[in-house]
Amino acid sequence: MRRDFDAGYVRMPYRRLVADFPDESAYPIKHFRVEWGPIFHRGRLDGTARVLVIGQDPAAHEAIARRILVGEAGQRAQGLLGRLGIERSYVFVNTFLYSVFGGSGSKYVDDEGIAAYRHRWFDAIVKHQPIEAIITLGQLADTAYQLWRTTPTGAANAAAYANGRHPTFPESASRSSGITKAEGFARLCASWNEVLDTLEGSVAPDTPVEPSRYGTTITDGDLVAIPARDLPPGLPPWMGALDAWAVRAGDTKQLKRASITVTVPTAARSWPPVTG
Amino acid sequence: MRRDFDAGYVRMPYRRLVADFPDESAYPIKHFRVEWGPIFHRGRLDGTARVLVIGQDPAAHEAIARRILVGEAGQRAQGLLGRLGIERSYVFVNTFLYSVFGGSGSKYVDDEGIAAYRHRWFDAIVKHQPIEAIITLGQLADTAYQLWRTTPTGAANAAAYANGRHPTFPESASRSSGITKAEGFARLCASWNEVLDTLEGSVAPDTPVEPSRYGTTITDGDLVAIPARDLPPGLPPWMGALDAWAVRAGDTKQLKRASITVTVPTAARSWPPVTG
Repeated sequence: MRRDFDAGYVRMPYRRLVADFPDESAYPIKHFRVEWGPIFHRGRLDGTARVLVIGQDPAAHEAIARRILVGEAGQRAQGLLGRLGIERSYVFVNTFLYSVFGGSGSKYVDDEGIAAYRHRWFDAIVKHQPIEAIITLGQLADTAYQLWRTTPTGAANAAAYANGRHPTFPESASRSSGITKAEGFARLCASWNEVLDTLEGSVAPDTPVEPSRYGTTITDGDLVAIPARDLPPGLPPWMGALDAWAVRAGDTKQLKRASITVTVPTAARSWPPVTG
Repeated sequence: MRRDFDAGYVRMPYRRLVADFPDESAYPIKHFRVEWGPIFHRGRLDGTARVLVIGQDPAAHEAIARRILVGEAGQRAQGLLGRLGIERSYVFVNTFLYSVFGGSGSKYVDDEGIAAYRHRWFDAIVKHQPIEAIITLGQLADTAYQLWRTTPTGAANAAAYANGRHPTFPESASRSSGITKAEGFARLCASWNEVLDTLEGSVAPDTPVEPSRYGTTITDGDLVAIPARDLPPGLPPWMGALDAWAVRAGDTKQLKRASITVTVPTAARSWPPVTG
């Protein structure tokens, strides 16, 4: 079976970046899930990325696949890139290397040890790849971008820029504020349509697409699976497909923090059913 | 934090080998856990491996870490290499790319599609790395080796050779035959002492060690953790440490096949306990 894969952190400066990274001394373990290890990126590091997408922090799927934005949020973001005709010439980097735990992680966005390392990634990417546009997803990612713009390399960067809401804004906003999930989706779509308004024309598509806009919600048709070329060698195809496959279970909060259960989605269970 | 890592399948011919591999058409999904994807190797692919270890098939830990022989079996094998003074100049490849499911997988050891691909790995390793000794763990691995010896490259190979029992022989033999686990451990130790008898002198150690032999069982002191340099970038240290962290759970046999639960070992939970 032929299957594409991401060879990973083969070249400098990325090879150096993944060999020495901020740990608990920069990311307090009370507020970040440092125990799952850093998860660095997804997408091209070979000099072909033309869009840099800045996300927020990894979650359960990402801790297993060892690439960021592979779960639901990533598939929504992949759909946004698709509307720009960008199928492969992108790279994702997050604001945080580790998953935020609880509500206090966001205040660390401008911590020196965290920001300095993040700036090294941004610097490496704009130096070694022909980035035409930068998209940030969510407020923290926008802050990460603005902080970088105060550095010499960030200030000199001429890429087009657009900030959109975080892909899981509907879920988080409906939990934390008074709005309904439907209203959250409507706001996400409006925000992402603005991103498209800003960037169409600034980014040469991999494959020309007719301009299109989101409706008032994200439908299944707006999700795009994670390409095999973004995943480490040997990962099964369902780890990039649309069905969720990782969850933090555990009967207590402590065990929930300590564990992730990976389940092959029903659609991918091609074996003869095992009974008993 | 500085942390070593395995950069993976960077070079030819390995890069080609992981891009096109046998799937369900060679490995019947009734007998192999093809759904977790192929897991190819552990150790050096950079021309520095002097010992090739052939194992059997990956299990739960390996499906998550995406390297073979990282769980209990791997730590026992790592201890065996340690007694030869081999700390880094090794490479592990398995008889099977996928975990055997149920009791009928072993008959596929000589299936053409399976053996031919395995031979390509062995050929690549002996061609591109200065292999001085080959160790097989278990009967299937010995069969895999003997089959390869009937090929031109295998026949021409002059590396020293030793077969030892599979590292989890005590557990499997006590389940499937009448012997006690203690007797199984005694046989494993005797077998691995014979491997040492055979290979001492044939393998130049990475670090000189005093010759030593196993007692009548495998103690915790006989286990060696998986080095960071064998694991993909970013994996947390506990994925190479001695405590088990992956299990196939699930309330039904079907769900047990479909899932793996990863749990950070207690010793690695350095966060303030989460209550509730």
